[in-house]
Amino acid sequence: MVELPSTSPPFIVDIHTHLYPPSYIDLLSSRKIVPYIHKATDGSEPRLIILPSDDDASKSLASRGRPIDSSYSSLAVKRTFMTQHHISISVISLANPWLDFLEASAAPGIARTINDDLGNSCAEFNTFSLSTAHPDQKLYAFGTLPLSAPPTHVTSEIARLKALPHIKGVIMGTTGLGAGLDDLALDPIYSALESTSTLVFLHPHYGLPAASFGGDASLSRTGHVLPLALGFPLETTIAITRAFLAGVFDRFPNLQILLAHSGGTLPFLAGRIQSCVAHEREFIANGGLKPGPKRDIWDVLKTNIYLDAVIYGGPGLKAAVDASSHDRVMFGTDHPFFPPLKDPDGRWESVDTNLKAIEGAKWSDRVTEAILGGNAVRVLGLAV
Amino acid sequence: MVELPSTSPPFIVDIHTHLYPPSYIDLLSSRKIVPYIHKATDGSEPRLIILPSDDDASKSLASRGRPIDSSYSSLAVKRTFMTQHHISISVISLANPWLDFLEASAAPGIARTINDDLGNSCAEFNTFSLSTAHPDQKLYAFGTLPLSAPPTHVTSEIARLKALPHIKGVIMGTTGLGAGLDDLALDPIYSALESTSTLVFLHPHYGLPAASFGGDASLSRTGHVLPLALGFPLETTIAITRAFLAGVFDRFPNLQILLAHSGGTLPFLAGRIQSCVAHEREFIANGGLKPGPKRDIWDVLKTNIYLDAVIYGGPGLKAAVDASSHDRVMFGTDHPFFPPLKDPDGRWESVDTNLKAIEGAKWSDRVTEAILGGNAVRVLGLAV
Repeated sequence: MVELPSTSPPFIVDIHTHLYPPSYIDLLSSRKIVPYIHKATDGSEPRLIILPSDDDASKSLASRGRPIDSSYSSLAVKRTFMTQHHISISVISLANPWLDFLEASAAPGIARTINDDLGNSCAEFNTFSLSTAHPDQKLYAFGTLPLSAPPTHVTSEIARLKALPHIKGVIMGTTGLGAGLDDLALDPIYSALESTSTLVFLHPHYGLPAASFGGDASLSRTGHVLPLALGFPLETTIAITRAFLAGVFDRFPNLQILLAHSGGTLPFLAGRIQSCVAHEREFIANGGLKPGPKRDIWDVLKTNIYLDAVIYGGPGLKAAVDASSHDRVMFGTDHPFFPPLKDPDGRWESVDTNLKAIEGAKWSDRVTEAILGGNAVRVLGLAV
Repeated sequence: MVELPSTSPPFIVDIHTHLYPPSYIDLLSSRKIVPYIHKATDGSEPRLIILPSDDDASKSLASRGRPIDSSYSSLAVKRTFMTQHHISISVISLANPWLDFLEASAAPGIARTINDDLGNSCAEFNTFSLSTAHPDQKLYAFGTLPLSAPPTHVTSEIARLKALPHIKGVIMGTTGLGAGLDDLALDPIYSALESTSTLVFLHPHYGLPAASFGGDASLSRTGHVLPLALGFPLETTIAITRAFLAGVFDRFPNLQILLAHSGGTLPFLAGRIQSCVAHEREFIANGGLKPGPKRDIWDVLKTNIYLDAVIYGGPGLKAAVDASSHDRVMFGTDHPFFPPLKDPDGRWESVDTNLKAIEGAKWSDRVTEAILGGNAVRVLGLAV
């Protein structure tokens, strides 16, 4: 474990924080279909519309999706947020749906542009920090991959990213190349990620079919709660379980995946997954014809999986640490999402809820400091 | 907390264990569409086919669904299982899909027949125990409701069940009357359950749409693992969250619900659910037009929710206890499901995995004994 100087307030690294660099804002603004940014001509706020369900034709264009303000793209806003919450380092990533929607031919070039832009944003931020009251405030980034392009383009970009000093891994959605993380066509990409020791930040976007939530009737009564509170983490859980069952961690034992939202629900369900595997008559180990995973999910959790601490409560956080380990869980904020609704200039309740869960667990200072920042510094190789 | 004599092995109550009484076996055997029991004429084992996806027309009838042997219906088999695992009391319930599939006109009569049959099975079992080496071995039951009938028939049966001495609550699926647990038409039933202090054992059956799991391709490679390991608990999580968001626990603050499989994933996701509620702009509390729940999910977990301990691992079990409390979690086995594949006469690995999770948590003897049996005795009012 990296030993950081004990500071009060402690040294905090935010590994789950989104930023749209200028090139990505331009890309979304140039589009008229999901995902896109609608810029009104009447002076009303632009809207970010990222899901087909957000693009509700029964609503006026000016009220679809969600308002997108400078918190999505401004380095100054990120800096203010960091200062306010005593965050020393933020590792930014594009928010969903990344580049999943691009034409194959356009994807590699756009990915390079956006990754360079992310790196430049970090460099600019870090240089500017030197002139501020917080000269050690730093930005790093997870890169993005042109997953709709042929796999060789993806593996090339993975290799190229290793030379970019501010890029510390890649963010990826749960569909992989479009068919999920158990798709054998992903193997060259898993291989490139493993051989370059590139951490994958796995993040949800697609949710579950509306029918899972009782369809439009239930969804329309509850705002975004069902898709956001349940759809997102359940999507992540299903995606990583499909990868596990398909033997991805058998074939790529050194693959390193950081799961958003403390693993969806993987820490809680790991036991049930392992028990169902052990009792599945169709797996070869039990006399059936299908391969099944060779490794144990608990071993994968302690070897291949990292978890953020974006779980908003003690029971979940403790399960995350218990299932992986105290040196594999890392603080995050999910900024700029879940802003305070009442006092936009105050501390964020969503951030404080996560901080309180960490404090409330009453781990040793060493473990608390590891989760708040030390683990991220070690795992991502951040210069402090 | 009920003080039980400290025994070695400890006093164990199994609150999640299924049994099909003769009338239910007859009912399923009389049907030719899902759910049904196919009895082959060539002497091969009968098959239980409960899901449309089990009724795969590309397979021979004799290989659809799962084998159904005497472990589903035999009191003697249940007794042997209990003796082998030192279980003193089992609280049996029908397995899914209960009576959800019945015509409205047939449902009330069949529910009465089956509930009487369950009660008689308990009485027969308990009388027979007196002649054995384990005279204190006892059976109680959760009743079943005619949910496809008009609500007055359901409320009548709830009232009638209170007079049956072996019935200690009711088991129910996640669809309620067909439209989910946020259906306002359920209010008279919630009211009857609340006013009679009838515990509801909420159990999954319907899973998630196949598309959630990557469709047939992913499902066909992994046996029953995805629907069983993930579909079941995610279904439960969605169902109870819909009830919570719809204000069911605001309107029925004394409703008592026992959630199967340690709450699906509710203990892990409670924080995210509460945070999403707090940040939902469309809820009236935040300036929107939709009601939103008034109570906090953590309060509901500690007031209205009980959890079984069928979670097969320490991190999940500890989160369940942490989120509800050590006097609200109760041991269960899920018998006759997840039998050992190698040594059918030995102890069951699925049971031992759950027992090890309880032991491994290293709670005080008092807490361990509460989870193994004391809580069930107190909550269900079992005579010991």
